[in-house]
This record gives sequence, structure tokens and C-alpha cells, in this order.
Amino acid sequence: MADPWQECMDYAVALARQAGEVVCDALKKEMNVMIKSSPADLVTATDQKVEKMLFSAIKEKYPSHSFIGEESVAAGEKSTLTDNPTWIIDPIDGTTNFVHRFPFVAVSIGFVVNKKMEFGVVYSCVEDKMYTGRKGKGAFCNGLRLQVSQQADITKSLLVTEFGSSRTPETVRVILSNIEKLLGLPVHGIRGVGTAAVNMCLVATGGADAYYEMGIHCWDMAGAGIIVTEAGGVLLDVTGGPFDLMSRRIIAACNRTIAERLAKELQIIPFQRDDED
Amino acid sequence: MADPWQECMDYAVALARQAGEVVCDALKKEMNVMIKSSPADLVTATDQKVEKMLFSAIKEKYPSHSFIGEESVAAGEKSTLTDNPTWIIDPIDGTTNFVHRFPFVAVSIGFVVNKKMEFGVVYSCVEDKMYTGRKGKGAFCNGLRLQVSQQADITKSLLVTEFGSSRTPETVRVILSNIEKLLGLPVHGIRGVGTAAVNMCLVATGGADAYYEMGIHCWDMAGAGIIVTEAGGVLLDVTGGPFDLMSRRIIAACNRTIAERLAKELQIIPFQRDDED
Repeated sequence: MADPWQECMDYAVALARQAGEVVCDALKKEMNVMIKSSPADLVTATDQKVEKMLFSAIKEKYPSHSFIGEESVAAGEKSTLTDNPTWIIDPIDGTTNFVHRFPFVAVSIGFVVNKKMEFGVVYSCVEDKMYTGRKGKGAFCNGLRLQVSQQADITKSLLVTEFGSSRTPETVRVILSNIEKLLGLPVHGIRGVGTAAVNMCLVATGGADAYYEMGIHCWDMAGAGIIVTEAGGVLLDVTGGPFDLMSRRIIAACNRTIAERLAKELQIIPFQRDDED
Repeated sequence: MADPWQECMDYAVALARQAGEVVCDALKKEMNVMIKSSPADLVTATDQKVEKMLFSAIKEKYPSHSFIGEESVAAGEKSTLTDNPTWIIDPIDGTTNFVHRFPFVAVSIGFVVNKKMEFGVVYSCVEDKMYTGRKGKGAFCNGLRLQVSQQADITKSLLVTEFGSSRTPETVRVILSNIEKLLGLPVHGIRGVGTAAVNMCLVATGGADAYYEMGIHCWDMAGAGIIVTEAGGVLLDVTGGPFDLMSRRIIAACNRTIAERLAKELQIIPFQRDDED
């Protein structure tokens, strides 16, 4: 039998490229910035426009499929994951970067069936890097196959993470205390380019050995998650347990050794799940 | 009178491109990593090879000029800045990135006469971005003129900094406590791509509003410093006083308002000056 989802994936790649063009065009213009959950959680008209554009194009072609999108959820829609084929979309991953024209901004499209990731597309549009991953068929960037690093020693690892958009003092304190513990192991370094999707893709390329974060959402992880696993990496929960797309937390690492070692160090920050009312 | 240093600058651009090719070629091969001042302060044979290549090419053409280079200093040479025309070079800014193939690695060449920066060249070779700045003549990236952002409100700013390579607990604690204070202002976000030179060039592009760091060296700042000022930005010491190339600390910002506001928040970490024995 032919791959039932390959057509969807081809469509997703074409749409991500189109959406990326809209995002890159918008970078050349004035923008109005609005605030969501905190002074560091931003949204622009482009986020909303791109999400609408993607959803209406997909709905037209696949009317029976389900959708979860960052801006639809912000507008009050639920984000409950069912077994139905579901498109999980972040129209602009790295909205703060977008607002500042910091050159890492991605369109992220994940496709999940029976709650399992089937494919993911992350288009880092300023860099013009199209990352893709298809279950069982590998991960690619602009046609070149990706392979995670082989680092098994955390003290020789390069990590990526973010400070996040929460400015609640207790949350910030745990984020920084986790970083302090990791620097003390020591690790080689910690970087962050400001988008979960691109950070995860950097793990897929082997450029970083692991990414972790708490407080992000399913639309930040659904596209890049399968790109990491198809590049040979692993996804774990920050507790070391199985990864849960709706849990708002992730470790994406080159291998299980690094992922579990990282999990040992991380103090958990509680966030409401994506599928909780 | 014709610009007396334009010929030197043209030569620097050509050499930086050549050096960047050597660096990018080396990324495709196995590498041996050695440790310098801490488990996070790394060096490779490529750093040393590229510095030798640059110095011998420049010495041949300008035998009367002086030189300060990261690897020559590591090998015991002094880094005293005189009034003589001086080339200040970091063969690979972002050695840890280089070791991990994290895609931000720069060749940095600064040129200083009478202790004043005359021009700077930063070639971010994986990105293929050639940044240049010439006193009084503007800053450019791949031929496009650069302009810093116009942000004057720190609570709407995007910052870049690094955790640094020191793993001394007290140093790490102050680095993180500075970040905690800035996140609390709040700022929009803090990023770091792992090289001082590229972080500063991101300020020059307007993508970030300010960069600060303590513990870096003159060769990390000498190339990008004038790129920032020629893009309309300012350099200050982290105390808010005048910038000092040999002081191992910097604020590079889009304007004085942001730079001074930042200086108010920063607790100073003492480091031995570059020109101290």
C-alpha cells in the first residue's frame, strides 16, 4: 500500500513554504504587536493571518481532519487531541524573534494520527531551511539527511533551551536554577535561538546534543518532534518518563543516555496541560 | 588624502573569507579538542592553524604592524595595546560552537590605530555572512547597509548574552542573577548564539537591541565593535562608563538609553584585564 500520508506531507511542505514567504514579507513592514499571557508573550496580525491561511487551505483539501493551532486556541478553541488525523500548527514559532526581526522564525506543522506523530515540517524562513521528518523515512533539511550527534557524555555536551515567556519570579528562578545545575556538571555550553522548533531542529542536525524546555505547547513541538526522532534522536518527558505531546514539556536529545542524564538534573515547573480545561 | 587604511581593510576582508573557508572545511572533518582555562574553554588545531595563516599573511604585507591574537596569547605572548597599527584577531570566535558544529562560527579581525578602532571584519562562515565596519563609512553585511534598532524602552527589548566559559560557581551565580534581574524588568527575551562577534553583529542588524558580556577578550570585540558603532549603536563599559577594549567587558547597544539602563542592572564580575600581567 502506498504511504497514506505522503500526499498530506507534500501539501504541508508546499504550504509551509508559502506561509514562510508571507512571514518573511511581513518582516519588511511595520507591525502591531499585541500581548497575550505576559509582557513577553507576544502576537501579531501576521500570526493570525498565517494560521487562518494554513487552516483554510488544509480544511478545503481534508475537511474531515482535525486542527489545533496556537492562535485558534488563544481565541478560545480547545486543544484536545483525538485519534482523528490532526494538524497541529504554529504559524510563527518565535513570535518575539519575529517582532524584533531576530533571524530565527519558523512555520511549524505537525501531523498526528491516533495520537502518534506521522510527519513534521519546520520551515525556518529567514534562513530558508526546510526541515522535514516522516515516520520511518528519516529527517531532512533542504534535501540533506539529518543525523543527531553521538555524544553520550553530558559534560561534553552542547545544550539548547530558552528562558521562556513567563516572568513569574518563581518560574524564572527554577528555570535559572536548572541552568545553574547544568553549567555546574559542567556542560560545554547552553545556547538558545528563541524558537523551540528551530532549537529542536538544531538537535536533529547534530549541532546541539539536547534541547529541553517546560511551558511550551504542543504546536511548538509537534512539527520538530518527529524530525528529531527520525534523525536518530529521542524524546522524553523532563521527568525521564515517556514524552507526552500535550504535557507542555520536553527533552529532545541525541540519545537516551543524554536525555536521562538531563532529566535527573531538572527541577519540574508545573504548567497546566494543553488538553486541560 | 585617500583613506590610509582602506587597503588594509580590503585585505582583511579577503583574508577573513579565505580563513572562513578553512574553518568551514574543517567542520566536515574529525577534530581533536583540547581544553584551555576551563572544561568549557576549548581550542582545536584549526584555531591555531587559521591564526598562523592570518598572521603570516598580514606580517608579510605589513611587517611594521603589531598583532594580538587569541591563540598567540594562549601560547604566552603578551596582549598589550600600543599606538602602533594593530591587528586583533580571533581565528574562530565560537570555538565551542565549532567543536559541536553549531552553525555560528566567525573569523574576527579588528584593526586599531592609536588605540582607536579603524575597521572591523566579522565573517560568519557557516551562514556566509560577511560583516564589515569602517570608521565614518558605515557598517554592512554582504553589501547591505546595517542599522541598529530604535528601541529605547528596555522592557520591550531583545537582548543577547552568553553564560560564558567560566564554571566557577560564584561567577556563574552572578551571570545568572544578572539575567534574573533583566528578565524581571521584564525584557522581551534573551538569546545567545554562542559567539560574541555574531551576537554583536546581530545588534548591528537591529535584530537584537543590546548585547552585554563580561569575561570575553579584546579579540572577541575588536572586529564587531566598530560594526556596531558604524551601524549607529554605542559601546559602553558594563559600569556605564566609557568602553575599554582591554577591560574584558562590554555593552553593545542600539543607543545610549538602552546601554545605560542595562548598566544599571548589571552586577560586575571581576576579571583580569587583557593587558595585565
